[in-house]
Amino acid sequence: MTQLSIAKDGDISESMHKVADIEGVSTDFLKEKIAAGEIVLLQNIKRKDLFPVGIGTGLRIKINANIGTSKDLNDLELEINKLKEAIKYGAHTVMDLSTGGDLTEIRKRMIEESNVPIGTVPVYQGAYYMMKKGKSFAEMKVKDFFNLIQEQAEQGVDFMTIHCGVTRSSVNRLKKDGRLAGLVSRGGSLMVEWMEFNKAENPFYQYYDDLLAIAYDYDITLSLGDGFRPGAIDDSTDRPQVQELIILGELVERAREGNVQVMVEGPGHIPINEIETNILLEKKLCKNAPFYVLGPLVTDVAPGYDHIVGAIGGSIAAVSGADYLCYVTPAEHLKLPDVSDVREGVIASRIAAHVGDMIRRNEVDWDYALSKARKDFHWDEVIKLALDPVKAETFRSMVKPQDNEVCSMCGDFCAIKKMKKVLGGGE
Amino acid sequence: MTQLSIAKDGDISESMHKVADIEGVSTDFLKEKIAAGEIVLLQNIKRKDLFPVGIGTGLRIKINANIGTSKDLNDLELEINKLKEAIKYGAHTVMDLSTGGDLTEIRKRMIEESNVPIGTVPVYQGAYYMMKKGKSFAEMKVKDFFNLIQEQAEQGVDFMTIHCGVTRSSVNRLKKDGRLAGLVSRGGSLMVEWMEFNKAENPFYQYYDDLLAIAYDYDITLSLGDGFRPGAIDDSTDRPQVQELIILGELVERAREGNVQVMVEGPGHIPINEIETNILLEKKLCKNAPFYVLGPLVTDVAPGYDHIVGAIGGSIAAVSGADYLCYVTPAEHLKLPDVSDVREGVIASRIAAHVGDMIRRNEVDWDYALSKARKDFHWDEVIKLALDPVKAETFRSMVKPQDNEVCSMCGDFCAIKKMKKVLGGGE
Repeated sequence: MTQLSIAKDGDISESMHKVADIEGVSTDFLKEKIAAGEIVLLQNIKRKDLFPVGIGTGLRIKINANIGTSKDLNDLELEINKLKEAIKYGAHTVMDLSTGGDLTEIRKRMIEESNVPIGTVPVYQGAYYMMKKGKSFAEMKVKDFFNLIQEQAEQGVDFMTIHCGVTRSSVNRLKKDGRLAGLVSRGGSLMVEWMEFNKAENPFYQYYDDLLAIAYDYDITLSLGDGFRPGAIDDSTDRPQVQELIILGELVERAREGNVQVMVEGPGHIPINEIETNILLEKKLCKNAPFYVLGPLVTDVAPGYDHIVGAIGGSIAAVSGADYLCYVTPAEHLKLPDVSDVREGVIASRIAAHVGDMIRRNEVDWDYALSKARKDFHWDEVIKLALDPVKAETFRSMVKPQDNEVCSMCGDFCAIKKMKKVLGGGE
Repeated sequence: MTQLSIAKDGDISESMHKVADIEGVSTDFLKEKIAAGEIVLLQNIKRKDLFPVGIGTGLRIKINANIGTSKDLNDLELEINKLKEAIKYGAHTVMDLSTGGDLTEIRKRMIEESNVPIGTVPVYQGAYYMMKKGKSFAEMKVKDFFNLIQEQAEQGVDFMTIHCGVTRSSVNRLKKDGRLAGLVSRGGSLMVEWMEFNKAENPFYQYYDDLLAIAYDYDITLSLGDGFRPGAIDDSTDRPQVQELIILGELVERAREGNVQVMVEGPGHIPINEIETNILLEKKLCKNAPFYVLGPLVTDVAPGYDHIVGAIGGSIAAVSGADYLCYVTPAEHLKLPDVSDVREGVIASRIAAHVGDMIRRNEVDWDYALSKARKDFHWDEVIKLALDPVKAETFRSMVKPQDNEVCSMCGDFCAIKKMKKVLGGGE
């Protein structure tokens, strides 16, 4: 049984009760949207104590933080610190994208230490272990792909990115059309390597039912990876990207028929005026499956500040209907993120998600409360309500005002204070 | 003679030649738009060596950095460092909003040290000197308002924010309607104080022709301040704000009749789905006068990260037709910004301006060049092209990859590298 099959049967699970409560929606609404595939609940059945996270129509916009080792920086404790920092600052989920060290052990620790759903890209593990054996990824056997999924499912991974839409036809579309940055998806590029070398179809596409069977057993939510996401503004919304999305749409319906929860991943580098179209396209082609966007990044020119670039794109995506934002850290395109990069990425993404919730769910009480506290000079309350109270407190303390009511920017020129004096407090 | 009167006469000034050249527009286009009041060139006639900055229809979006001392932090050398940092990172103009120390001397140094136009809010000086004399701002004489303007004009200030739209009628609108955060504009609140105490009309409104006369003499561009800009999401696009904008529209036309260049300031705290409306409203009510927006800030909840919040709002404003973005630093609402806050603010604002230029001027060559360099592993070029090469270089060096072609995030998993190997470099 999966949340999807339960909902289709018209039943309401304990997880649905929990999620409906925290999201402020009715259990009936939630059940109907899960049954329709518009909402997924992330929770591997092995993780009974996990508070499930709901993603999709009518729910708050969620954010994900990617962490994980690499060959160049492989330190499990550092990754655990990143995990904790991400959760502390409000990441709703974390993906372990480790590609260095003992991947199984790292994943085990992440799952143990995390009270939020954990996602993975299973093929990374295959590629890493083949590399360690001195072999090419292309030598991997089809059954090994599914063994990987099985192993990670059994460990308790809650959602998995699988690049099922990287098929012979979509790869041919890429070859035919060309692109500035080519493929920038690691998982996608691995599948292309395997397919080209073996002159074979993507095993996750060809044997999709086997994938669905494992996902069903553990109620793992499939996140259909966007192997062809544009990695440069020049490649945005091109034929390879849309070709893959069409295939993903087909696979969404097959997953739903198999009672497997499924969402769809999306771009990527997209100019600001194409974001709304990308969201609409996903919603149409993939029958309103929850949309998980990476950024989007609205310009290529700001490495070191891609968290800001992603917050711009993410805000517009959120307002336009995206359900789930993958954070981008300041380190993107330059290095593996450290703990402070993770924090900056999570906060930028949370701003974008909240901006979306303000519009889509009319969630403006938080804004009202903070501005009310600001107007009343209740600084303790302002700091407590701030998205990052630690930074707000630190900044306020850096240049202490002589008058405790105001701040050191305006000092005696505080307009709010003057207006209270002149017009009275109750305007 | 002003740039406006020259353009109206059908002539093309040396400044117009310079600006047309750097903006990639024809001198005829520029002349026509200046004559129509849709473009202003910031340059006090006293600053003959200044390269003028053009703002408005068809030109690149410009950004401004606010700096200046306050009572709580008054250090001229620190402000000069902020000025230099702002210019180094790409601010097109700087406003000196000092409210502590020897304001005349500070302004003199700023003008000397700056190769970009300098703006001010002249009433701050009046308020500060009255305060130093132990007097109330309300005791200031009408002629002193204009003496202030004259003094700063003679010093070489290129543009001035004057809160002419804070009138008896707009203040009454505020009293009648109420608001969560009231007035948050320092200049606006000073005018209200003066008007309420003296039971008189705003002298800049009542004697607007005297203001125009000084501005004409020096070809100072008036920036009509938005005293009623919303300081909280809850106050956005309310009647006081729009009431003032209507008055500003009237004053725009009178300035143009007087051959005085003029632009209009705008919000402020505005939810993301009201930004486009705010831009359209200004363009209609103020007859396409260049629009200078402060942010906008799309949420109140992120003090410490308002540069990100402002970059989100600024991007949408820029795409929707705003011409000039006032930066917001991470210090906003908390303290006077330091040098690093200024840098962060300028960079966030430049991202927003570029995002606008990508759409409005199809300026995507920079993005293309950087992504091409990235794809070719020309890291020196990537860093050189980055909006902030210093940070890009620093980040890249922090975790050095073993393979110099890739970065430490993906290492051997670099999708671009894999795809070149598998599909060839020319896809």
